[in-house]
Amino acid sequence: MTLKVYNSLTRQKEEFVPVQEGQVGIYVCGPTVYEDAHLGHGKTYVNFDTIVRYLRYRGYKVRYVQNITDVGHLLDSGEDRIMRGVRRERIEPMEVVEKYTRRYFEDMDALNVLRPDISPRASGHIPEQIELIKALIEKGYAYEVNGSVYFEVARWPEYGKLSGRRVEELMEGSRVEVNPDKRHPADFALWRRAEPEHIMRWPSPWGWGFPGWHLECSIMSTKYLGQPFDIHGGGLENKFPHHDCEIAQSEAAAGVPFCHYWLHNGMLMISGEEMHKSLGNFVTLKEAFEQYSPLAIRFFVLGGHYRSPLDFSETALQAASKGLERLHWAVQAVRERLLAADSGTDSTERAFMAKLAEHKVRFVEAMDDDFNTAAAVGVLFDLTREVNTLLDSGEEISQETLVAIDDLYRQLGGDVLGVIPDEIVKGVAGLEQPLIELLIETREKLREAQKWDLADEVRARLAELGIVLEDRPEGARWRISR
Amino acid sequence: MTLKVYNSLTRQKEEFVPVQEGQVGIYVCGPTVYEDAHLGHGKTYVNFDTIVRYLRYRGYKVRYVQNITDVGHLLDSGEDRIMRGVRRERIEPMEVVEKYTRRYFEDMDALNVLRPDISPRASGHIPEQIELIKALIEKGYAYEVNGSVYFEVARWPEYGKLSGRRVEELMEGSRVEVNPDKRHPADFALWRRAEPEHIMRWPSPWGWGFPGWHLECSIMSTKYLGQPFDIHGGGLENKFPHHDCEIAQSEAAAGVPFCHYWLHNGMLMISGEEMHKSLGNFVTLKEAFEQYSPLAIRFFVLGGHYRSPLDFSETALQAASKGLERLHWAVQAVRERLLAADSGTDSTERAFMAKLAEHKVRFVEAMDDDFNTAAAVGVLFDLTREVNTLLDSGEEISQETLVAIDDLYRQLGGDVLGVIPDEIVKGVAGLEQPLIELLIETREKLREAQKWDLADEVRARLAELGIVLEDRPEGARWRISR
Repeated sequence: MTLKVYNSLTRQKEEFVPVQEGQVGIYVCGPTVYEDAHLGHGKTYVNFDTIVRYLRYRGYKVRYVQNITDVGHLLDSGEDRIMRGVRRERIEPMEVVEKYTRRYFEDMDALNVLRPDISPRASGHIPEQIELIKALIEKGYAYEVNGSVYFEVARWPEYGKLSGRRVEELMEGSRVEVNPDKRHPADFALWRRAEPEHIMRWPSPWGWGFPGWHLECSIMSTKYLGQPFDIHGGGLENKFPHHDCEIAQSEAAAGVPFCHYWLHNGMLMISGEEMHKSLGNFVTLKEAFEQYSPLAIRFFVLGGHYRSPLDFSETALQAASKGLERLHWAVQAVRERLLAADSGTDSTERAFMAKLAEHKVRFVEAMDDDFNTAAAVGVLFDLTREVNTLLDSGEEISQETLVAIDDLYRQLGGDVLGVIPDEIVKGVAGLEQPLIELLIETREKLREAQKWDLADEVRARLAELGIVLEDRPEGARWRISR
Repeated sequence: MTLKVYNSLTRQKEEFVPVQEGQVGIYVCGPTVYEDAHLGHGKTYVNFDTIVRYLRYRGYKVRYVQNITDVGHLLDSGEDRIMRGVRRERIEPMEVVEKYTRRYFEDMDALNVLRPDISPRASGHIPEQIELIKALIEKGYAYEVNGSVYFEVARWPEYGKLSGRRVEELMEGSRVEVNPDKRHPADFALWRRAEPEHIMRWPSPWGWGFPGWHLECSIMSTKYLGQPFDIHGGGLENKFPHHDCEIAQSEAAAGVPFCHYWLHNGMLMISGEEMHKSLGNFVTLKEAFEQYSPLAIRFFVLGGHYRSPLDFSETALQAASKGLERLHWAVQAVRERLLAADSGTDSTERAFMAKLAEHKVRFVEAMDDDFNTAAAVGVLFDLTREVNTLLDSGEEISQETLVAIDDLYRQLGGDVLGVIPDEIVKGVAGLEQPLIELLIETREKLREAQKWDLADEVRARLAELGIVLEDRPEGARWRISR
């Protein structure tokens, strides 16, 4: 079995071969920390988190670098995004950065997105960026005008090779700003001169200024992963110009390829439309978490392929929540049965163990096919149907079988997809589980003592708290529906 | 009422007058992130967190900057602390930094230490550090030898004014290393040359290297707070040479004072001894949290004056836990009574309201006296005695009175001291509280129905979970003892 990934650079699925055997270096463009992360960020970072988790499951030692953009990422108006936060909240730029970096990671933690191994900041890598600019000027790929430095795209014929855009096309495009300092409208800034009143500025050989946005990713990827490195990920909307500029800078300066595989994920849509503040359909993750559980949102994202756009709607989210509940019920039932199970398998069970192995193979095949999480989730549902049939068969199930099922769920649903929590089966914390179980036991004793109304009241009060009981032959089982 | 602080620089208590009316800029030396934070860190950052909280309570707009040291802080062996982490864990320097920064904030969050407004990193401020060195060389306070730059203490006669050490004394001291590059043994490094195999190094006018440890604090304090700024805090062990070097660098370069007030906190001792790895009495915060609740540790720290050493022992911690429980019981009782209270105060209560105001004045007087938290905690205990007497009097207590008491606890014990949580009275989370209350109600109904053994079992099972019931005339009250 080999892992195949769709490489945006070559526009085809390729066998994945890392630079160093057994190791993967991956860089993903991180957030600009000036406001709360939105649903689109949720999709992007769940997509790449799952890719990283799968690479680790596949046995690779992965180093995952994801930057924090805290300077130089300008709005179309030319305003620095961080300065927009500064004006809105009347605090220092670094206070804006601090606040929204923290809130970003809160949201990612909630989505069960594992922390990157390194989260470098653009403002923390100014000297490295200046060095790269110096090298580009020296090699004739960049020029200085009035304290700013531009990359001269005409000098590097491969410019645009990722997006497939040609410079001639760009000239006709309306998105290219007119700037008399530039030799060609498609040239892009490596360093921008800053006036004294600009707070975020640093000294450089070209005077006080700040780096162009594209530069930071070239620097922070190769500083921590080497050049060439394995995988560069990011949202499709950053393919051009951001990623094409990264390639131009890094390859022109070093004379070797920047990275081998480019992975781009599709956008999140709201009821068929792109999400935009101007459309009034902009939803932050914190707002979404008020309505849906973060794990349900994660599960919803995994229901589509990372490269496809994904349509967010109430119906789709409710379906994802229900689907995830179905998985959780099965896992919970397995873990509960396990507590009282005996050792010793019979032939039926040995047949079942063979099926488990088949499901695992199918899951790996799905993920090996360019991280097809939608198909992988399908395998988990198939597995769950079989597990439920076994559980409902009325037969004794041995410890070995139950352990094998639980283990498979932990690997595929837990480690790889990140939607089945390890410790807490039911989305409960602290003493909630033992307290609920004590209440259920007390209710059963009340029924034995024929105190029916007291027993019913316990059930009704639990329901008010969102804890639903289901009476089954082997006793009541419960679930928090929130 | 005026706030007085003990200023280590002038060696006396002084009235606090900020640079800008109504605003305070405070900088506190942060951790070097190469291993887990220990109890001593806990004391330092609880001490300064409480100072910041009190300044805010006093109406100041505070900007609190606390750095993250991720480069240049050398061990006596000359090894960079981060590189020690790298060798221990076989990961990249920035992975070490990432991991221990995260774990540090986890610990601080647990201690209810509010996040600083800005947590700048040394590695993120290399250009600024280089600029300061250039200015010092230009003004004749620093010299370059073999790619390293040293501050020449003989050129700045005020050197040592904070600690009161004279250069002549230093020469006789054994702690001054012999370095043939230095003009005087007391000269200290501003920039250190790094060999090519050194991972953490940056280009500079003096070649590849890294900044001296003292430099980062000079830069990151004044960059975000201006010069002079109001308060510089840190552990007593950093007074010399670290803080004296900061003053020398910043004042020699800028020609104006560095900061106005120096606050140093006393060390944490273990059973009368300093904490040292070599003594085998080194306790990380994460280890301590396994035995004691983080809030009890915070409360223990506040039981001493920040400037005094504090002796950590099992007995002292148990006493602090008990004391904190006493406060929590009273607050809880007030909040419970409030749920059913009616409006309308009588003369007894008006007298009590006057007492509340007196306690508040005494609390502020204690904190105004150089942040005397030990005395402030004493006021809370006095208040609690009075509150308990009122609650036990058997009289009706009006809503107004209960709100006033609750409000005072929230301000003094919550906002300022950070030991009385706002939302969760009993150290419970999620559904724990309603579930416990449902169990207590069910137990009462069982007793009414004369099902004594079932009722007793509920009580016993709750006790196993650490939930202690206390039957009182008005019904059972409960507490989690963990």
